[in-house]
Order: sequence, then C-alpha cells, then structure tokens
Amino acid sequence: MKHALTSLGDYTAPVRRFGASFIARLMVLAVGLCAMTVLTIPEMEQSASLWLNLCLGSCLAYFIVESVMRAYEHTRNTRLLNYLFTPGAIVDLLGVAPVTIALVSGVPPATAWLFASLWILKLAQDSPGFAQLGRVFVLEAKPLASVFAVFLILLFLSAAGIYVLERDYQPAAFGTLPEALWWAVVTLTTTGYGDAVPQTNLGHFLGAFVMVSGIATFGLWTGILATGFAAESRRRNFIQTWDLVSKVPFFQSLDPSAITEITHMLRRLEVPERTAIIRRGKVGDCMYFIAGGEVQVDIKPSPVRLGAGAFFGELALLGDSIRTANVTTTMPSTLLVLDLADFRALTAHHPDLKREIDAEGQRRLAENRRREPQRRTSVSPS
Amino acid sequence: MKHALTSLGDYTAPVRRFGASFIARLMVLAVGLCAMTVLTIPEMEQSASLWLNLCLGSCLAYFIVESVMRAYEHTRNTRLLNYLFTPGAIVDLLGVAPVTIALVSGVPPATAWLFASLWILKLAQDSPGFAQLGRVFVLEAKPLASVFAVFLILLFLSAAGIYVLERDYQPAAFGTLPEALWWAVVTLTTTGYGDAVPQTNLGHFLGAFVMVSGIATFGLWTGILATGFAAESRRRNFIQTWDLVSKVPFFQSLDPSAITEITHMLRRLEVPERTAIIRRGKVGDCMYFIAGGEVQVDIKPSPVRLGAGAFFGELALLGDSIRTANVTTTMPSTLLVLDLADFRALTAHHPDLKREIDAEGQRRLAENRRREPQRRTSVSPS
Amino acid sequence: MKHALTSLGDYTAPVRRFGASFIARLMVLAVGLCAMTVLTIPEMEQSASLWLNLCLGSCLAYFIVESVMRAYEHTRNTRLLNYLFTPGAIVDLLGVAPVTIALVSGVPPATAWLFASLWILKLAQDSPGFAQLGRVFVLEAKPLASVFAVFLILLFLSAAGIYVLERDYQPAAFGTLPEALWWAVVTLTTTGYGDAVPQTNLGHFLGAFVMVSGIATFGLWTGILATGFAAESRRRNFIQTWDLVSKVPFFQSLDPSAITEITHMLRRLEVPERTAIIRRGKVGDCMYFIAGGEVQVDIKPSPVRLGAGAFFGELALLGDSIRTANVTTTMPSTLLVLDLADFRALTAHHPDLKREIDAEGQRRLAENRRREPQRRTSVSPS
Amino acid sequence: MKHALTSLGDYTAPVRRFGASFIARLMVLAVGLCAMTVLTIPEMEQSASLWLNLCLGSCLAYFIVESVMRAYEHTRNTRLLNYLFTPGAIVDLLGVAPVTIALVSGVPPATAWLFASLWILKLAQDSPGFAQLGRVFVLEAKPLASVFAVFLILLFLSAAGIYVLERDYQPAAFGTLPEALWWAVVTLTTTGYGDAVPQTNLGHFLGAFVMVSGIATFGLWTGILATGFAAESRRRNFIQTWDLVSKVPFFQSLDPSAITEITHMLRRLEVPERTAIIRRGKVGDCMYFIAGGEVQVDIKPSPVRLGAGAFFGELALLGDSIRTANVTTTMPSTLLVLDLADFRALTAHHPDLKREIDAEGQRRLAENRRREPQRRTSVSPS
Repeated sequence: MKHALTSLGDYTAPVRRFGASFIARLMVLAVGLCAMTVLTIPEMEQSASLWLNLCLGSCLAYFIVESVMRAYEHTRNTRLLNYLFTPGAIVDLLGVAPVTIALVSGVPPATAWLFASLWILKLAQDSPGFAQLGRVFVLEAKPLASVFAVFLILLFLSAAGIYVLERDYQPAAFGTLPEALWWAVVTLTTTGYGDAVPQTNLGHFLGAFVMVSGIATFGLWTGILATGFAAESRRRNFIQTWDLVSKVPFFQSLDPSAITEITHMLRRLEVPERTAIIRRGKVGDCMYFIAGGEVQVDIKPSPVRLGAGAFFGELALLGDSIRTANVTTTMPSTLLVLDLADFRALTAHHPDLKREIDAEGQRRLAENRRREPQRRTSVSPS
Repeated sequence: MKHALTSLGDYTAPVRRFGASFIARLMVLAVGLCAMTVLTIPEMEQSASLWLNLCLGSCLAYFIVESVMRAYEHTRNTRLLNYLFTPGAIVDLLGVAPVTIALVSGVPPATAWLFASLWILKLAQDSPGFAQLGRVFVLEAKPLASVFAVFLILLFLSAAGIYVLERDYQPAAFGTLPEALWWAVVTLTTTGYGDAVPQTNLGHFLGAFVMVSGIATFGLWTGILATGFAAESRRRNFIQTWDLVSKVPFFQSLDPSAITEITHMLRRLEVPERTAIIRRGKVGDCMYFIAGGEVQVDIKPSPVRLGAGAFFGELALLGDSIRTANVTTTMPSTLLVLDLADFRALTAHHPDLKREIDAEGQRRLAENRRREPQRRTSVSPS
Repeated sequence: MKHALTSLGDYTAPVRRFGASFIARLMVLAVGLCAMTVLTIPEMEQSASLWLNLCLGSCLAYFIVESVMRAYEHTRNTRLLNYLFTPGAIVDLLGVAPVTIALVSGVPPATAWLFASLWILKLAQDSPGFAQLGRVFVLEAKPLASVFAVFLILLFLSAAGIYVLERDYQPAAFGTLPEALWWAVVTLTTTGYGDAVPQTNLGHFLGAFVMVSGIATFGLWTGILATGFAAESRRRNFIQTWDLVSKVPFFQSLDPSAITEITHMLRRLEVPERTAIIRRGKVGDCMYFIAGGEVQVDIKPSPVRLGAGAFFGELALLGDSIRTANVTTTMPSTLLVLDLADFRALTAHHPDLKREIDAEGQRRLAENRRREPQRRTSVSPS
Repeated sequence: MKHALTSLGDYTAPVRRFGASFIARLMVLAVGLCAMTVLTIPEMEQSASLWLNLCLGSCLAYFIVESVMRAYEHTRNTRLLNYLFTPGAIVDLLGVAPVTIALVSGVPPATAWLFASLWILKLAQDSPGFAQLGRVFVLEAKPLASVFAVFLILLFLSAAGIYVLERDYQPAAFGTLPEALWWAVVTLTTTGYGDAVPQTNLGHFLGAFVMVSGIATFGLWTGILATGFAAESRRRNFIQTWDLVSKVPFFQSLDPSAITEITHMLRRLEVPERTAIIRRGKVGDCMYFIAGGEVQVDIKPSPVRLGAGAFFGELALLGDSIRTANVTTTMPSTLLVLDLADFRALTAHHPDLKREIDAEGQRRLAENRRREPQRRTSVSPS
C-alpha cells in the first residue's frame, strides 16, 4: 500500500510540493486572514459577502487537506493518539475544527468565520526559532517569575494606593479597586491611555513612582531575557555547527580540542541553488567550507566544481583580499563560514592548520594544472 | 515539650503540610485579594457583604495561624527580637497587624479590608529569586544611581523649560511647576497620558527632546541591569552547582581544575516525583548525573533503579542519538544536566573523562547482564 | 598663609566638614528645589512669599560659599582660568551666577528664582559614575550615531507620509509638516499622547509601522548601550581593583599572571566606620582582604584587630560555612571580597595559594594562642 | 583624458573638497529639509514662497551636481549599470529624480517639494555604521523573525478577542476587526493613544494581558539585538585592529598567538590634525601606538616628533601615573590605545613584551640624550 501511494504521489508531487511549500502556506494564510478581517466591516459584508465566503471556504479547504495529509504522514511512524498531543497537531486542529463546527451547527457565517483568526497560529508551526525562544523562557523561568511577582506586587499596591487617594475626587475613574487596577496596569506598562489620570498632588507622586518602577521592572525583565538568549544562542550554534564540522573531512584529522575551538568560530550558512557566494573583484574577509551540496568556481577555460568537504575563498585570508573568481552554488548547499578574525586567531593557535590549508590549496592547484596544462589559474578564488 | 509538639504534629502533619504548601498559600492569597477587590464595588458590597467578609476573615485567620507557626518555628533557633527584623517576619506582620488593628478599632470593614492589599507582599516571601534580583541592584548600585540622577536632572530642567514656554498659553495644564513636573515625568517615561500636551512650537521641540532623552536614559538603565544580571547569574549557578558536583562520586577523582571547568558546564534540574526525564524514541542531546534522589530505567524484564552518584543518557552523546528506554524519577531528585555541546568540549579537554564514562557504562552493562543473563539490553538508555 | 588658614580651619573644621558633606549638600539642594517649586504656585506665592524667599536666599548663600571655597581649594594647585573650564566649576557658576544676576538686575523674584532649577546639575558634580556613563557613550559613539540617524530617517519619512495621508481629513492635527513631525516623534517613541491620531486606513497602517519601527530602533539602542556598559564596567573594575591588590602584601608573592587572574575576581567594598561585616551565626559565602583600614574580630576574652594586608572569613570557604564571630570595622575601610565561586576556581588553578591561606590562618591561630594561652579560639571567624 | 580631468580638478579642488565634505552636505541637507518643512505651513508659503523655493532649488542643484560627480567617479572603475544598483546610487537617484520629475511635469511646487523629504536618506550614505547595524539584523534574522511572528500572533488574536468583547458596547471604536487591529497594535507597542480604550471588565483583562505580552515580546527583541550587537562589535573591532597592528613594527617580532591576544586588547582612535592627545599634569591610564600619522612631544629645548610604528605614554603605566609632557598630532593620525588594565594583563602573560617596551624606551631616551646632551629629559611622556 505504501508503494501504491508513493507512485500516486509521483504524479501529484509537483502540485503537492508547491501546495505544501512555505510560501504557498503563507499566501493562503494572508488571503484567509484578510478576507476574514474584511468580512467584519458591515458595508463589505453586504456587498461582497459571496466572494469573501468563497475565499474563506477555499482557505479552510486547503487547511483541512493540509492537516489531514500532515496527520497521515506522521501517523505512519507514531500512533494517532501520540500525534494528537504534539503542538503541530493542536494548531492544525484549532485552525480547522472550531470554524467547521461553528459553520455546521448553524452559527451565522460572519460570527463563525471569527474562529479563522486562529489560523494565525500556523505561523508558529514547524519553526525551530520558536523552540529556541521557548527554551530561553524555560531556562530563565525562575528570575522571570520573580520579576513577574514584583510586577504583581507593584500593581496591587499602587492600585490600592491610587484608590484611596483619588476615589473621592474622581469616583468615575477610580471609584472601585478594579478600576484602579486598570489604571495601574496601564501606567506600570507605560501605555498611558489617558482615560484615567490622577489629579491630586499625592496621586501625581504615586503615578510618577509607578511609571519609574514600571520601567525599572521591565528593564530587569529585558536584562534577564538578554542574558538567557545569549547563553541559548551560544549553545545552539555550537551543537548545529559541530554536526556539520564532523562531516568535513578536512577537520577530522584535528585533535578534539582544536575541533571544539573551530566549532565555536564557524558560522552556518544555508544557501539555495544558483546563488552567488563570491563575486570576482569584491573584497573578501572570510573563507568557506562545504558541509553539504556543491559549488561551481567560474575559472575561464572550464569551470571547476567543488563538493562536500572542500573549501574555497582561503586566498583572501592568506594574502591579497580581492576575490579572483565567481563562486556559485549548483544545488542547495550548507556552508561553514570562517571569518578573517577567527581565521587569524585559529591559525595563530594551530600553525599546523595553516599548513594544511596551504597544502590542500597547493594540491588542488596541482590537480587543476594536470587537468588543464595550458593554463595556470588556481581553482581556489581568493 | 518539643517532643510533645512533635507527636501532636504527627497527627496533623498532612493537613499542616498542605496548609503550609506553596500552592495552598497562593490559593488563599488569590481568593483573599479577589474578595477584597470585589468588596470595593458598591453593588457587590451591598449584595454579598456577608460572604465577602466571611471569606476575607477566613483568609486573615489562615495568615494569622501561618505567621504564628512560622514565628514559633524560627524562634526555636533565634531570639524573637532578631526574628522580628527579618524580611519574612516583617511581611507576616504587615499582612496581619494593620487589618486586624483597623477591624478591632472600629474602622468600617470596607475601609479596614483595604489593608489586605498588603497580603500581595507574601509573593516575595521565601523566594531565592528575589534575593538574586536584589543583589543585581546592590552590585550595580553606583551606575544605577547615576542614571537615576540623570533622570532627575532631565526631569527638573525639562519641567522648568516647559513651564516657561507653555504657562502663558495653557495656564490650566502648565500654570505651576508641580504641574510641569507631572508632564515631565509622564513624558520622560514615554507614558504619555495626553492630559497635558505642549502646543507651542518650542514646546514641541522640548517635548521631542524629552522623549528621546527618556528612551536613551532608560536604555542605559536596561543595559546596566543586563550586565549586572549576567554576572550575578554566572556567579550563582557556579556556587549552587559546585555544591552538587561535590556529591557525585564520579567527579571526585578529577583534579580541581577539571571540576571547576565541569561546574561551569553543568545545569541543575530539580525534578518532582514520578516525572519522565527521558522518553524512548525521542532525540537526546544531553546526559544526566544524579546528585540526589533516584530514577528508574524501564528496561523490559525488570526495571533498574539508579541512585545518587549514577549517570544515564550518555549513549545519546557517544553514538546514536535516539533514546532507547524511558527514565522516570521515583522520588524528588536533583539532576545535573550536561549538554551535548559541553560534553564534547569537556571530553576534548579531558580524554580520561570520556574513558571513565565509557568504562562506567561497560561496568553497569556487565552488571546488568549478570543479573539477567537471558537478555543483553544495556541499562543505560542512550 | 596656608598655615594660618589651616589653623583657622581647625576651629571650623567640624562645621565645615558637615557643611561640605554629601548629605548636607543633598539636603540644601532638596530644600531649595522644593521652595522654588512651591513658589510657582500662585496661592503659595502670596501667602508664604517671605518664607520661601528667605529659604531660597539661604540656599543660594550656601551654594555661593561652597563654590568660592571649592574654587579657592582648586586654585591652590591649578590656575583660575584652567579651573573655570572644568565641569565642576561650570556647574557651580551656572548654579550661582544666573539667579544672582537676575535678582540684582531687578527681575521679579518669582521669575528670577526659576534659574534655581539649574541647581539640580549639582547632582552630577564630583560623581565618578557620570564619567563612566559618559565613557560608554563615547566608546559606542559611532553605532549610537547610526541608530540616531535611523531614528531621524524614520521620523522624517513617516511625518511626510502621514502629512500626505491625513492632511485632508484632519487639517487641524496634520495640516502642516511640523505638526506631522510632532505626531511622528510622539509615536516613534511610543509616547502616544493621543492629541493627534491617524484616522484613515492607510494612516493606521503607517502608524502601526512607525510604532513597530520605533521599538526596533530603540531595542538596538539599548543593545548597544548594554554592550558598551559591559565592556566599560569590566575595564573599570579591573583598574580600580588592581591598585588595591598591589597594596595587599599577601598577593605580592604571586606571579603577575596569578595577580591578573585574582584581580578579575575580587570585588571592592568601601565600608564606613563601625559597620558589621560578618555576623556570628550567619551563613558565609565569601572571604575578605583588607586593602585599607582596620577591623575588629569580637572573640571573647579580648577582641583582636586586623589591619591592612590581613584577611578574614576564610574558614567559611574551607569547611563549615557558619560564621563564628562578629567582625566590625573600627575606621572607614576598603575591603576586597572574594566570592566562594571565585575562591574555588582560584585555588583550583593555584594550589599554592590555598596552602598560603591555610598557613597564614595557622600562623594567626598560633599567635592568638600565644597571647591567650587559656583559650583555643581561632581569631579568624569562618 | 584622466590626466586632463585631474589637472582641472587641481584648480577646483579646495571648493570641491569643501562642497563634498561631510559637514557641507549635512548643512545643505538641514537647510533643504527645514525649507521644505516650512513650505507646508500655509502662512509661510504665501509670505516667503519665493525665498523658500529658491533655497530648495539651490539644495536640489547641489545634490544633482554631487550625484553626477559621484557617479562619474565610480564609473571610472565599474560599469554604470553595476553602479546604479548600489545603495549609494539608489539614494542619490531617490533624492534627485522624483522631485525633478514632479517639478518638470507641472505638479504644484508645494506638492512637488514633498519628495525632498527623501533627502533625509542621505544620512545613511557612505556610513560604515549602517552596514554594522544591518549585519546584526542579518545574523539574528531567524530569532528576530520568530519574535515578529509572536508579535503578529498576539496582535491578531488580541484584536479578534477585543472585537468580540467590545463591539456591542463601543461600536464606534471596536465595531470592525480593522479597528480592533488598530487598538491591538497601539496597545501591544504600549503607545496607548487613548482613542480606543476597552470598557468592559473582560476587555480590561484582555488589555492588561496585551500590554504585558507586548513588553515581554519586545524585551526578547531587545535581548536578541543586544546579543547580536555584542558579537558583531567584537568581530568588527578585531578585524580593523588586526590590520593596524600589522603596520606597527614593534608587534611584528611577536608570535602570532600574542598578536591575536594584543589585537583583542587594543582600541583604535582616529585623531584629526593638531589635537592634544596627552596633556602634561593629567593622570594617565593608557599608552599609545602610532599606526599611522605623526605626533609631536613638547619637551622643552626642541620638540621631538614620533612617526608610525612608535609608541608613547608608557611611563604612566610603568611607574608614576602623571603625564610629563604634552603630545599633539601634526597630521591626521591613527593611534592604537592600550588601557592600563590590558597592559597589565598583557605584560603578565608576556614578560618579554614588557622588556621590549622598557628597552625601546631606553633606546629612545639614549637617542634623545645624544641629540641634546645638555638635557636629560625622556622623550617619552609618561
């Protein structure tokens, strides 16, 4: 059966691939949300109701098909019940189920389509960035909780204070504690709508204190998040780069301590097909290692291709800094970029590495000469 | 007498333990503050006065009992007078005394219960996070004071400026310097109520300058807090982890310099009872050392238990990254987590450590085989 | 003549010292600014004019005397002309001259005293913290200028845009470009007075873009300041601590690389006279070196005094962490604090340092025994 | 032809140089933008129309000439088509073309000159700082995109929520989803105009949640930018300083690892002609290496000049910290500053470097004596 599906899949693959692509999803999402937003304007609802409903219906159909296909794909490996509790499945369900149920159970369309606003959650699906942000909040949970407690304490005490100070002067705005709490949250976050403003002198003092406290509190909040993000960012880069470094044969001859060091220095770069990486004549301040994919070096008689494990652009770091040839990807590739600064620090600590880069360059140069004896151009653009 | 109390305590322990637990306190706090908030709404006060007062009375009784018990417990070790000046005791007193005194001395209940807003301070009690935030402010006290002085200078000079520029055009909003100061603080913190807005051209210029200065000032404030928090966070983690590392026998064979290094890399993790730490089939990117408590590894014929000092999850770092067994805590445990990135950096610097981890894994594997000769599953889930 | 002044000074020294002290200046400043603020309220000006003027006059007299004395003291070393261009002298002059000239030249007092708002600048006088903040702005001047240019570009383009979009709908609020610029600055800083709010759909789009751009811009601003402050803070601490470390004989036997390392770890602490540093029974997580001053260790038969170069509190780091004696300063002292975390890292790298601390402790213990043979208490509180 | 142009250029060079200078451009820009702003005020347009148009016309002429000259200069090296797609050329075109086309095609001047607001983009031209800020956004693109997605999700869901909660109570402010989106963006960025404020209790709850979420989101945003800027700043400083270090002969004798280390410590300083670097009698906490240019040391009989490769100010770091002579640049110079803190750390790790600095000082001192045998002043001011 899997075989049958695969062969069916072969015919519909191009359509399916576009339909499931990132850009197609974003476009459907944007169209759907716009249509749903426009539908809430009374004039538009009367004049263009049919078209808007049609548009929303198509988007809903797309998301239903997509959700079912995604569920089908996942449940080949795991059980349906396990899959239903993954964030992706919950987002799919929230996007599809409420609006369908509302439409089927006879809720007026204008109201039912409001549930389509849940489609915006699809922005968070399958994104590694969200996991990273989430980890920052988890790692710094304790200090963030403390800051939030400080916020609650300030909120409640300032609300109680302003209630006592202003309730007799402005019973409409500060007559009850819930209204005072609303003022406190609007002031503590420095939003400042201006619908409730203290007018007594003591109220002004308290207000000034609340504003400054709010800024101090959220400054601490930002400081904690900055610290957490810096740590998480360092950690994540290391892990991802390490996996790639292990695929580059050139680094495998190094001792583990040098690999650890170089991993901290390399930066990953995902490049799509047919993209220029190096342009002739530009100033170069980095060299590249190919962790996956292939690039083409445009040297004159016939271009040379470099595959996974090769490196290029090192001449710019060794001597003259002007690039001598264009380098373009021939397929989606993963490169590891070594900046000039790090290259110098690295070769300072590991002179053997510099020798290896020189030797590898010489070897490629010799190979290049053997293939094209009439020319003496280096494969490796500087 | 201490003995008598202990034996009495044994009977009431479960109740007492729940009553003193973190969640019970939070619930009483939330109920009390809600009741007190609702009591300030005139309609509610008339219709549900009895119930609200009853509810608030119960919360007050709970806090009185709790305060007395806490005081009793503390004064077993220290003198009452010393205890009264600890932050915890002051918060207890502030929560209990004012509202009680107000009620007893015949203040109308609706007013007296306003003092219950001080209960919110209990959020700050016994929390190590607050001490940490406080230390950041202490360590960075000098630069923060300088920023606050800059704020005061900007505040006063801009208030004097706007007073001179706008007092003739808008005597109601800028007629006196206190009113101008109110505008200045509302603008400098970018709250912007809109109750006083400059209308002359020069007033607009000054206003724009004040807003931009406010953001620059508080950006510096945030930068200082971020720097201070990063330093404090590093320091605190080191101390807490060092204490745990010293309890893991595996690390005791290392030289002090390696212990310092590994302490910087380990992350503490407090896990409650019966919590899954590793799930079979998931991708693993860290290993765990048990600093305290016990975990159960669910391998088939009969599960294996690992106690303090053992480690698990190392196979995911050595080879294949898919976890091969569930691991669950059997009691509240303290784990030390070593991330993949740090594991690689550590074993690169200390190849002997990697050998020890391999050897320990082999030893446990052999023991496992001896116990269950018919199976060849490793105890250690990868 | 200098001699004559000194002997005269000897009689007035206590008064002069208090009058020139930090707290006295702050009090005069606060009183002066309050009086000047109150004077702008018409009712107060009529009822309490005499008292307020008297109060302001006294403050002015104080600042005149202070300025003259400070100028006299400085011009003993440098020429008057050089001194006049120092920030301190300019602040003194700004505080004294404008208000005096205004009063003398017949300006009505209520207006003349407005110049007293310049007194607030005295907050910035003689404060090293301001120099530090200033250095951050100087070091990061280029990126901060770039962010400011981005701010100006956003400001001008959004003002031009909103002027085109809204001038026909709201000629009162957006009828001219200066008015549109006012809206742009109020929105870009997220102040949001609400005196001018776009009402067309395109205006709403532009407004949303301006708000989000404002936050992005000022987030970058904060990030630059945080980076700059972290660098400046590290640099400043190192220099100040190095100077103190060189005064502690204990560290002089170390090689320069170890001194560099320990300098990064030590934290300065300025302690006034008669201040408790260690309290008996508390948990200790740091040890102290005396860079200057003297402390008294309260051990029973007779307390022991430790002077510059000695250390104390090390037992808490070596074994049991409960402090065993009170330690109090007998004069204003400068201490160097070594945290538990850093102590462990340091002694891990320099085992000889740990031996020296142990040996020094033993030596002091022996001396202690020699002095009081009937007791066996260690001088050094843990 | 190039030769002809150069000789023509020689005559107009001084005018051309001022006309193309940074300050002249800023002045023309400021004058042009002010004139264009004033032109939108109806009274000014009627009374001073001629002068304003003349002024704007001159600015436009200046920018046209400047753009053409810049294009001419660039197209000597690259092709015109390539140049047209550089950011500089696009900014030039945007500043010149739209306003010219509008004026020529008969649009009323008051409207046509609005395109002059695009001149503000010239602030971004030729500034390396902008490239640096741009790199931060590129490096942190993924997490910033995630934060922006979180912002969009919060925006849309809170708009849908407030629309449902408030549309019946305030149909004017929350009657359609676009209006609710406007409220959401105004609240989420904590701008808070106050033109639309929730009034139901649930609306207040949602509003409070939106404000706090907004601050949390943008705190993360700031944290990411701070992390990215710190990394980019470190990288950029290293590269720029390395290039300069390689020009100082003194450092060329060092091994590469020491050069890497010292590069991290040095700070670049671009100094214009005739600028005092060291003032006699001031306290010194850094020494200087001359990477390019020349300085003059004002020692009494006749001043001494030091060129590229020399250093000065080292005596302040070796012993007494009071500078003993003025040092002034004689031409625009590039200096490398070594702070006291870093000097100590460096000489601790590399005692040979300290010896070389001492030796070089002695050598210069000896040379100084040979030239002026009657005096014994060191050339090198401390």
